[in-house]
Amino acid sequence: MHPVKVMNEPRYHVAGIGNAIVDVMVHADDSLLADLGVVKGVMTLIDAGEADRIYRRLPPAIECSGGSAANTVVGVAQLGRRAAYLGKVCDDQLGGVFRHDIRNSGVAFETPAALSGPPTARCFVLVTPDAQRTMLTYLGACVEFGPDDVDDEIVAQSAITYLEGYLYDPPLAQRAFLKAAAAAHQAGRLVALSLSDPFCVDRHREAFLELVQGHVDILFANEAELTALYRTADFDSALGAVRDHCRVAAITRGDRGSVVVAGSQTVAVAADPDAVVVDTTGAGDLYAAGFLAGLAGDLGPAECALMGGIAATEVISHMGARPERPLLDLVRDMLGVS
Amino acid sequence: MHPVKVMNEPRYHVAGIGNAIVDVMVHADDSLLADLGVVKGVMTLIDAGEADRIYRRLPPAIECSGGSAANTVVGVAQLGRRAAYLGKVCDDQLGGVFRHDIRNSGVAFETPAALSGPPTARCFVLVTPDAQRTMLTYLGACVEFGPDDVDDEIVAQSAITYLEGYLYDPPLAQRAFLKAAAAAHQAGRLVALSLSDPFCVDRHREAFLELVQGHVDILFANEAELTALYRTADFDSALGAVRDHCRVAAITRGDRGSVVVAGSQTVAVAADPDAVVVDTTGAGDLYAAGFLAGLAGDLGPAECALMGGIAATEVISHMGARPERPLLDLVRDMLGVS
Repeated sequence: MHPVKVMNEPRYHVAGIGNAIVDVMVHADDSLLADLGVVKGVMTLIDAGEADRIYRRLPPAIECSGGSAANTVVGVAQLGRRAAYLGKVCDDQLGGVFRHDIRNSGVAFETPAALSGPPTARCFVLVTPDAQRTMLTYLGACVEFGPDDVDDEIVAQSAITYLEGYLYDPPLAQRAFLKAAAAAHQAGRLVALSLSDPFCVDRHREAFLELVQGHVDILFANEAELTALYRTADFDSALGAVRDHCRVAAITRGDRGSVVVAGSQTVAVAADPDAVVVDTTGAGDLYAAGFLAGLAGDLGPAECALMGGIAATEVISHMGARPERPLLDLVRDMLGVS
Repeated sequence: MHPVKVMNEPRYHVAGIGNAIVDVMVHADDSLLADLGVVKGVMTLIDAGEADRIYRRLPPAIECSGGSAANTVVGVAQLGRRAAYLGKVCDDQLGGVFRHDIRNSGVAFETPAALSGPPTARCFVLVTPDAQRTMLTYLGACVEFGPDDVDDEIVAQSAITYLEGYLYDPPLAQRAFLKAAAAAHQAGRLVALSLSDPFCVDRHREAFLELVQGHVDILFANEAELTALYRTADFDSALGAVRDHCRVAAITRGDRGSVVVAGSQTVAVAADPDAVVVDTTGAGDLYAAGFLAGLAGDLGPAECALMGGIAATEVISHMGARPERPLLDLVRDMLGVS
């Protein structure tokens, strides 16, 4: 997979840009989802009023730092690679929690907090007994993240700049996204994108297609997101399309593992048949973390996909989207790589 | 156990008064405890400066509502009894989280939030691999809780008013405590006290002895707290002393179960030998919840102790001090009582 070989000694292996969110996790049953009128397994955007209304109806919760790209860079750091994060919190208690957690996970995070305006973003994560997670996101301070928050220096010094597709929901962040991609490529670096969610793909299909063809080197998606992007029910035709658009595409398929296409190569890696699934929150984020950490170590597509699988398997074995067991030890035990 | 028979149809079975705290839970190893200079298994009070300094050194955390008496009344409500809570939060994000969680657990909570002054209290809970919890508490807004916050109506309408020993740390709360005890007894109701922590007993031994002899009907303590109260290494002499001081004393002994003394009765109940211990946070709080719920159902000391054991066993089987599985179902399954 030499086309994506990482340049020597970048300051950071991965810089993630995303919505900086605190997860509010609750156990929920299907009837609560029906009452709230939400679709299981997807992320729905809500405004401040809806957030208040929904929160009042939720059972007791636990709060933990989240955000898709943030989860990914935390995983990258836990895998022994250097990681940075760019995203917007408010200067409030939950913003302090987010900053504490990402920094103390070993990730550089210097984006200044908003001193006024909406509070730090939160995502209600409803975990049903089938381990599926359904998300309701109030973007809060994330709407303030704009091009000025993209530190060109950090992007230029990062081997890969990783963008979450959710960034296309707050409008200012779309411009930040394009600025970051330009800065990365100008410095000879790579741009990665996660498609995030099939409904997010529906909301921004044309923009995503343009990005994937013109700006993205490494694409992460699950099967539903990829087929949504290419408006096809046929996984193989979607794979064929993305092969022509990106240098590398890593597509996750739940308990069927993942498929990587890179030029003429196609690699399929099975999922761990013994995986314990408690809460799927963060599965895609941590798959990307393992894959990117593998790329940073100049590993081939199969090894990258295996590392992604190991990281994802850890995060789905417990509540919450941040790893609890030391990922580096897990990877060393299973692959014998560092 | 007729001396503590609950009066008919109180509005609440239990009103808890305590420090309203959000727990900040982290996995820690013994070396972090040594670095921070804290004693394993106890609760240490810290000020705002120390809280900042310590938080900066902690690994990523999860936040969940806590507070000793608050955990207890949540358990009481989950066991199908009517419960109220009195305690002070600030009008900030973590105060909103605390209020949401206790109310949506079915507990009445009307104490007004402080509109200025210190933020909502937080407790750093360091859980070591041996499942022990070590706590560092910044009291924050709890220092504002005073006699004016004791709603005499609620106390008079509650069969049992349950006070946590930690209330003796913020000075205003001590006066609130005496006011609540007087209001309860004037209405013909009962007063329960938890000794909370052996170091808390050391800090307030004389006051606690006076309370136990003059104001407390039902005492909860663990072995270390009870022997600290009576300054003796001998458990049996401590039991003899407390027998003369309170109508009922329920003393927990970790994996050796609990002992209840009530007048001339002494009942020992073994712990569940199959208990899974992940995090002991909340064990004493939920034992008290089960015991009080039993009293509210007019059960005898052995049944009350068994219910306490069932609730404690649930809460130590996972991270956090609030039950995750429906306690009422567990009790029905095991005891066939409601």
